[in-house]
Amino acid sequence: MESKKASASLIASTYFTSLSEVNGLVCNSEPTRATMNQREQQKQATRMALSEAAIDLFCEHGVEATRVEDIAASVGVTPRTFFLHFPTKHAAAFPDHEERVQSFIASLDELSAVEHPIEALKQTVLAGIRTITSSSLRRKRYQLLRSIPEFAGIDIVHDLDYEAAIIDHLTTPASNSGPVSADEMFAARNTASSILGLSRSALTTWAEFPDFDPVRAIEEGLDALLLKPSECR
Amino acid sequence: MESKKASASLIASTYFTSLSEVNGLVCNSEPTRATMNQREQQKQATRMALSEAAIDLFCEHGVEATRVEDIAASVGVTPRTFFLHFPTKHAAAFPDHEERVQSFIASLDELSAVEHPIEALKQTVLAGIRTITSSSLRRKRYQLLRSIPEFAGIDIVHDLDYEAAIIDHLTTPASNSGPVSADEMFAARNTASSILGLSRSALTTWAEFPDFDPVRAIEEGLDALLLKPSECR
Repeated sequence: MESKKASASLIASTYFTSLSEVNGLVCNSEPTRATMNQREQQKQATRMALSEAAIDLFCEHGVEATRVEDIAASVGVTPRTFFLHFPTKHAAAFPDHEERVQSFIASLDELSAVEHPIEALKQTVLAGIRTITSSSLRRKRYQLLRSIPEFAGIDIVHDLDYEAAIIDHLTTPASNSGPVSADEMFAARNTASSILGLSRSALTTWAEFPDFDPVRAIEEGLDALLLKPSECR
Repeated sequence: MESKKASASLIASTYFTSLSEVNGLVCNSEPTRATMNQREQQKQATRMALSEAAIDLFCEHGVEATRVEDIAASVGVTPRTFFLHFPTKHAAAFPDHEERVQSFIASLDELSAVEHPIEALKQTVLAGIRTITSSSLRRKRYQLLRSIPEFAGIDIVHDLDYEAAIIDHLTTPASNSGPVSADEMFAARNTASSILGLSRSALTTWAEFPDFDPVRAIEEGLDALLLKPSECR
């Protein structure tokens, strides 16, 4: 069997690489921030500025009417620089997927050292949702997802990477207790896909209805989905 | 607002068309079987035979090692004929997605005339799952989905079409009772994505574990997800 941790987060990248699309998205997780020199930091800043500009222009004028030239110009770089960061116009709307999956996995691992695995999962999911909902840029992106089928498709393929990470988390026991049974595997898969579906549903509704509170909705949904740690010890 | 029924089942086709990939998949829902002449029937039979051969060969030799020439030869047609049916090798593994979504929507509509909408939804989902699980070819395809990230990506994008159909079904009231609220929209989205996640989890586990019963798992999961009709009237 291949390494579980290694297999997580490869789904979206393999999918997109083999479609020869948006493959530039997933190459930016190294080096980590701690070891990043000034030049790398500048590169990262340009990448994020291009992404913000792209999302703003997509929302304002539509994706079709937005040219790579416009995105590049609004950040003060050339189209050539844009294409050093992103293979396509659409890819600019998803600049940090791989980084975010890696930090999701790191959080699950860290919290599992001090918390019950289910509690670690809840805290990690909620922290991720709070990061998203504190950003007006992310809200704009969810509005784009709602209106542009291609973006919705990219987003749900990305969700497979989080699903894989949660399945790994739930099926990797602290002690060696033998192979995972069919029922355990099904339960882990169903929990993972339900958490992603819950998050997607709440964030899409948040993009549509200004007064909807996605964090509360996801908290309540997670409580319904997941047994309390005290109930499963 | 655009027509809800018209918007259902457009997500995957728009996504793939704009990726210039597998767009041949979604052009085959007309004419219906009732009006299909002999030539159309022959065309449809060839399409399904090519798909079966492709899935068999993918399972036996792997996707990379299978050539379009091999698939065509095993059905007794030329590669040119293959490409009249499918734009890519991978597309042959998904020959009838659009047809299946249309029949899913038709079943929801028909059953809603005589059943509570939740009961209509349950029956439609279970009928679909029974069709899938009675086919050894479908099982092979789920085994491919597990092992090939690109196929998993195509499959989950297809799920968006079923999600859209379920959301339409749940948010289209029998009488005109005003616009859908944020909470109602969130509940419909969460129910739809949970049903698709449940189905995908059960079918993926079925492909991995021969003794796992996906119909039972999905029946139990649907009962937990959906209120009984008597509870929501």
